[in-house]
Amino acid sequence: MSSGMSAENKAKWMCAGGCEGDIVISTRVRLARNLSDVPFPGTMSDDQAEQVLQRVRKVLEPGGENQETFWRVQKTSDLSNLERLFLVEQHLISPVLANSRSAAVALSSDASVSIMINEEDHLRVQAILPGLELDKAFELANDCDDVLESALPVAFHEEYGYLTACPTNAGTGMRASVMIHLPALVSSGHIGRVLTAIGQFGLMARGLYGEGTQATGNVFQISNQVTSGLNEQEILKNLSSVISQIVSQERALLRRMLAREKTKLEDKVYRALGTLQNARILTGQEAMSLLSDLRLGVAAGLLGDSGSCPLNELLVSLQPGSLQHSAGRPLSAGERDIARADIARNIVVDRIREGDNQ
Amino acid sequence: MSSGMSAENKAKWMCAGGCEGDIVISTRVRLARNLSDVPFPGTMSDDQAEQVLQRVRKVLEPGGENQETFWRVQKTSDLSNLERLFLVEQHLISPVLANSRSAAVALSSDASVSIMINEEDHLRVQAILPGLELDKAFELANDCDDVLESALPVAFHEEYGYLTACPTNAGTGMRASVMIHLPALVSSGHIGRVLTAIGQFGLMARGLYGEGTQATGNVFQISNQVTSGLNEQEILKNLSSVISQIVSQERALLRRMLAREKTKLEDKVYRALGTLQNARILTGQEAMSLLSDLRLGVAAGLLGDSGSCPLNELLVSLQPGSLQHSAGRPLSAGERDIARADIARNIVVDRIREGDNQ
Repeated sequence: MSSGMSAENKAKWMCAGGCEGDIVISTRVRLARNLSDVPFPGTMSDDQAEQVLQRVRKVLEPGGENQETFWRVQKTSDLSNLERLFLVEQHLISPVLANSRSAAVALSSDASVSIMINEEDHLRVQAILPGLELDKAFELANDCDDVLESALPVAFHEEYGYLTACPTNAGTGMRASVMIHLPALVSSGHIGRVLTAIGQFGLMARGLYGEGTQATGNVFQISNQVTSGLNEQEILKNLSSVISQIVSQERALLRRMLAREKTKLEDKVYRALGTLQNARILTGQEAMSLLSDLRLGVAAGLLGDSGSCPLNELLVSLQPGSLQHSAGRPLSAGERDIARADIARNIVVDRIREGDNQ
Repeated sequence: MSSGMSAENKAKWMCAGGCEGDIVISTRVRLARNLSDVPFPGTMSDDQAEQVLQRVRKVLEPGGENQETFWRVQKTSDLSNLERLFLVEQHLISPVLANSRSAAVALSSDASVSIMINEEDHLRVQAILPGLELDKAFELANDCDDVLESALPVAFHEEYGYLTACPTNAGTGMRASVMIHLPALVSSGHIGRVLTAIGQFGLMARGLYGEGTQATGNVFQISNQVTSGLNEQEILKNLSSVISQIVSQERALLRRMLAREKTKLEDKVYRALGTLQNARILTGQEAMSLLSDLRLGVAAGLLGDSGSCPLNELLVSLQPGSLQHSAGRPLSAGERDIARADIARNIVVDRIREGDNQ
């Protein structure tokens, strides 16, 4: 992306590979917290919402409780529709926050941590890292939460744990989720069995952009459904163990595909590369499918290392909000398809050439 | 193509563009002749067939009547099935000759002229050139015929002209045909009207490999149906005039496509380029379709000049016989699809890179 705002806004998870980065796109840990002396956002007044925002802002501002991280706090009402959509596409804010009154987002300087203020809960602290990094992501979110809790009265119940607007989040208030790319499990038809099985471990799977979205481009978000009854470490360990098993199964299927039909796999991967490097019109759905084939090529070892191909970045850069953000203006669907092809072509060709020279 | 035999065998029409070379692939003029003192091939004995061959061979051999051209004469029975198929794909011999007893082919050194011996007629002299070159092709074939007629008694009737095995060839004995690529007329739906209209001019249209073959890759062969009642110049003038009109219509439609939907056209052309440069498996049908898109890009001025893209060569190189000839062995359908992708990738990538450097 080339526009001024995007560089400072580009979330850390979009930049690099991370652990198991060819298969695991990103790891997110989100902690839901509420102030004990203010009604939940659903029932609070505008004044109370504004007070919550001011109190959080004070904690985060330089010289406040937080001494290490520089935070940029923005009210969603100060952002354009395009800017909000762009933040949603980067997974830095939720669609709910984008449309909440008196809501705001605080972003750490590398956008690895974001704090959503006055979403469904007063505070939702989330850390996102590239690859499979559950412990590190939890640590980041937890450190941020420690800063907030050291200065603000947080609703906590001896028996129920952290109190949240929706009871399904109460207890730890933690939702850990892993965004994972499973083309071999999908094409082999085994994915159904996997998705059924994870339910038995208290986990759930959703599409790229959360609940109700389709698993386009063979990307799934797998997260803990249960937030209470176990502590954070137990939830993370359970999720980590299941993800590791899924990654192993995906890799085994990839190896089998490589052994049995390598040329067919290469054909698929290189055709996708050729199309991304040459198309002049690209729909969102086709782009996600081509990116999936490209990531498959990286995971199968057919396309050099993942570092040479900015797969995470493309996953966001080709979304409608990002395209319009780069263009600096709203684009029609037809214009977006052309802009999408332009950006895919520039990014893929540039990086592949860089890769050639290495 | 890389094997030893192919270089010497590569027909001249496959090498360069010629007049209107972005739309007109090649021009062929064929003259049917028979010896007056031997029964037509359909009723002659094997001995008589062998005598025809020896008499022709004598005319063509160095020191004989022919002083200018070096001829290579090969009996079809001395060629392998693959070699015969390869010659058919280059349009140097007909499928009929490939399967005729006591048949042979004489090729000029640049394969611009071939003489089929003991096909349906004793002699079929044909000249093929790249692009629209009716007069030059006729001159080449006619010069060769003059050499043959100066030494051999040719069946000619005052009233009916040259006598041929099939009456539809009698008179001039000439079939002039133009291989032409008409993607805009096809995609606009106007091709039906054009093909109907040419019948009224005594012309007919067929697919890439003659009668009964489909017009794959938007390629049509347009030739004179009538061989008597008009002299050679009149037939050529009529064909030339109709072809020029068709070329004009195709160009007008191309200009309209460029004006109205340039991006869509570029998308189609560059996707084809990307696929030809990257695919690892390519069926014959898809290859012809991609080559058609590539030639469309050349004709529309989107891909540099036609010289940088060996379109005529690829049209033959990706055919089953050529692929197996290059491999030096028979290939299964699956092996051919892989070999086809390999050759497309090497030729297209190499030439496009050459084009970049110019």
